[in-house]
Amino acid sequence: MQPTDKPVQSELDAAREPVKDPVREQPDKGQSKFDLMLVSFQKLLRRGAITNLTKMLGKMHPADAAKIIVHLSSPKEKRTLFELVKGEGPRGQVLSELDADSIQQVLADVPAPDIAWLLKDLASDDVTYIMGVLPGALSREILTLMKTEDSTEIAELLKYPKDTAGSIMTTEFLSLFEDTTAQETIRRLQRATDAEHVFYIYVTDKDEHLVGVLSLRQLLTVPPETPLKNIMTPDVISVSVDMDQEEVARQVARYNLLAIPVVEKDSTLVGIITVDDVVDVIREEATEDMLKSAGVTEEDVLASSSIRAARLRLPWLFTNLFGSLLSGAILWHFRYTIQEVVAIVTFIPVIAAMGGNVGLQSSTLIIRGLATGRIELADVWTVFFREIRTGLLLGLACGAMLTLVGLAWHNQGFLGMVVGVSLLIAFLISTSMATIMPVVLKRVGVDPAVAAGPFVTTANDITGISVYLSLSTALLSYLK
Amino acid sequence: MQPTDKPVQSELDAAREPVKDPVREQPDKGQSKFDLMLVSFQKLLRRGAITNLTKMLGKMHPADAAKIIVHLSSPKEKRTLFELVKGEGPRGQVLSELDADSIQQVLADVPAPDIAWLLKDLASDDVTYIMGVLPGALSREILTLMKTEDSTEIAELLKYPKDTAGSIMTTEFLSLFEDTTAQETIRRLQRATDAEHVFYIYVTDKDEHLVGVLSLRQLLTVPPETPLKNIMTPDVISVSVDMDQEEVARQVARYNLLAIPVVEKDSTLVGIITVDDVVDVIREEATEDMLKSAGVTEEDVLASSSIRAARLRLPWLFTNLFGSLLSGAILWHFRYTIQEVVAIVTFIPVIAAMGGNVGLQSSTLIIRGLATGRIELADVWTVFFREIRTGLLLGLACGAMLTLVGLAWHNQGFLGMVVGVSLLIAFLISTSMATIMPVVLKRVGVDPAVAAGPFVTTANDITGISVYLSLSTALLSYLK
Repeated sequence: MQPTDKPVQSELDAAREPVKDPVREQPDKGQSKFDLMLVSFQKLLRRGAITNLTKMLGKMHPADAAKIIVHLSSPKEKRTLFELVKGEGPRGQVLSELDADSIQQVLADVPAPDIAWLLKDLASDDVTYIMGVLPGALSREILTLMKTEDSTEIAELLKYPKDTAGSIMTTEFLSLFEDTTAQETIRRLQRATDAEHVFYIYVTDKDEHLVGVLSLRQLLTVPPETPLKNIMTPDVISVSVDMDQEEVARQVARYNLLAIPVVEKDSTLVGIITVDDVVDVIREEATEDMLKSAGVTEEDVLASSSIRAARLRLPWLFTNLFGSLLSGAILWHFRYTIQEVVAIVTFIPVIAAMGGNVGLQSSTLIIRGLATGRIELADVWTVFFREIRTGLLLGLACGAMLTLVGLAWHNQGFLGMVVGVSLLIAFLISTSMATIMPVVLKRVGVDPAVAAGPFVTTANDITGISVYLSLSTALLSYLK
Repeated sequence: MQPTDKPVQSELDAAREPVKDPVREQPDKGQSKFDLMLVSFQKLLRRGAITNLTKMLGKMHPADAAKIIVHLSSPKEKRTLFELVKGEGPRGQVLSELDADSIQQVLADVPAPDIAWLLKDLASDDVTYIMGVLPGALSREILTLMKTEDSTEIAELLKYPKDTAGSIMTTEFLSLFEDTTAQETIRRLQRATDAEHVFYIYVTDKDEHLVGVLSLRQLLTVPPETPLKNIMTPDVISVSVDMDQEEVARQVARYNLLAIPVVEKDSTLVGIITVDDVVDVIREEATEDMLKSAGVTEEDVLASSSIRAARLRLPWLFTNLFGSLLSGAILWHFRYTIQEVVAIVTFIPVIAAMGGNVGLQSSTLIIRGLATGRIELADVWTVFFREIRTGLLLGLACGAMLTLVGLAWHNQGFLGMVVGVSLLIAFLISTSMATIMPVVLKRVGVDPAVAAGPFVTTANDITGISVYLSLSTALLSYLK
């Protein structure tokens, strides 16, 4: 869900939460306040209690109303509730907080001019988000219906590739010429519309190049006739329109900014990205990384049909299926060894699972470290050697344990030792693979998160089992 | 790392980044700007080029200087570089951006009065963070050395349990009595120190209860004599001091706030949490969840010693070891079946891996959904039945595939069918377990993220293998 771009306004004008709220204070224990609210909305919808519904919606924050709509199961109920939100302002805000499916559902029967009307007061990034969800023909129709100035801006924004700074920025911000005086700036602020962000005032030269920044409070502490260029801070942290949104989020997080200006290659100021959008990017990227490592897509989360969900997950499972069949083929190759000493079989799950687990620990550490910037490419060798040493230690501990188990269980010292040594080798291989893969992927520009996925795990299984069975076969024929 | 609490100030006064920066614009391709910088710092440190180092540090943002210090490998170099940061203001800010280990290392030889001096201009949440890292005796000594007012405040903050709103809030904020006029407020703003946040002005009644909020811009658009109570928005979204930081982050994200006020049970305003701290919380919680599912702790990420890392990961691996030995024991139980039809062994890796994978997909979806609030406890049954249906469909597809493989590979139709049916059953069991576990854990107040961990995977392996071998044994004895 895309947030609205008016943090100040949304708290000040639209917040309807009482200060004291006993349920909200313990939101994690059993039924939450939201659950109770959802249930009463569902009941009222079934009874068709329009007056009650309208009244309840009127008291709610648009973000809460949107959340209720997202969690209703029938498109018809979603539509009904959406239409009961009063005023195109709040209705537009609710719209901007919905997920893609719900937007399509609630707008299914709404004519283009009415949609254009709903969007008129929204920030440009919210409009861009909603337009991106609607069918191409409809969004073009809406664009032509909007005021020319707005629609050109939106059309420009729609051109930026997904997940770049350009695609999440808003064009509503306050930028003033460097010769403007403090007094004029204050007057300009008093006339500013709600859509404009006023935590920072950006200062530009005559060619609209970004040259400085100042805070509202700085404005209040200087004589009225001071030009902005005398009070502004000339060094501004900015990002370019084509920067990846994940990198933008890292910059905003690192420097604790409320908003970051977006510039073209020639440093022309074209937009800003506010921290509330960055919060969403961080959550989205973390979700994406977690899902990716389990072979699930973001699309899957939203799919309400299990057929669609199954189709999305199947490719990943098939990859795994063939990987594990390969492990099976290796077992088949060593079938005579297995038949001879069937106790060998008992350690196959151990070898297969443990190598994968140790690898997963290393790769998770590194993938997350790279994503958050805690680990840089410069640290790679340090981390690599640490992980190898850790793998060695873990292999020694688990290997010793298994040698004892093998001895005690099957009364076969040789088997225990083979298992122990195989595990140690498997650990060394899997920690090195798990450490190198994400880094290699990052260097070639692929998201390292996929490395926690099936390929590494399957490769670990196969190597582990091969090492184990080769060693046991070799030892068996030596003993004979 | 804890951010500083002065987003406005840190951009305006401390930002030293040029607007145009070709390297920063392509940060993901090969050696990053940071890597190059780190290398040159290391070289200069080895050469003891104090003048150069001081000059470079002087041009840097405290957050960047802190990052260099964190990535240096020797504690001695960290200390040297930290001591070269000029002025206690910037040095305090660098300190607040370091991780726990680095803080202890750079302050190792610094006497308590000097530390107290470094902390004097920091926001209270940063001081709380640093104090929490230092040994108890030292932090008490520092507290007594600080100004009484500040130290009482910090001592109060240190009392709040980790990860609650109270532990991450700052006590520097602007709150004014409801009868204050707009003009007085502006005058008050002009005198405000940097440590105070000025995106929102909080309004309290005579008992210091939070009663309203207003933005700076609202202040500029009213006659000077208007009292705050006439222009404030009376409904404020706030959180209680004991709310979990994860829930605080969800509130700030949902309502797109820049800061959220923190109140006691009787709605006395005691602090605020700013969005930059929320950004850190969101990243930390996501990291924690990812690591948890791989059996790695946050502590492990920071451990530079591989012995410590191995010790931290060992308990999880041992759990897995015993789980997979249990699978091995089941194989041993069915050893005569295996010896009789050795082809059965070839499908064991498939059964073991696939059940776990399908379960991981379901549990990851649900755990992340619960963490971000996309899935609420109210949706649980809907999600449960969708996952079961998805599991059924995936089981049918993979089962059919395996039946064919069994037939083609070992020319044994019965084996193929047994594998297919076992897989289907394994899928149904693991999707239901994976769906129910996180929800049950959440209801009893345990973090659902642990459910993606070893227990569910191991349980899936054991069930899958048991079902498979029981079915094949039964069918074998029936065929005889």
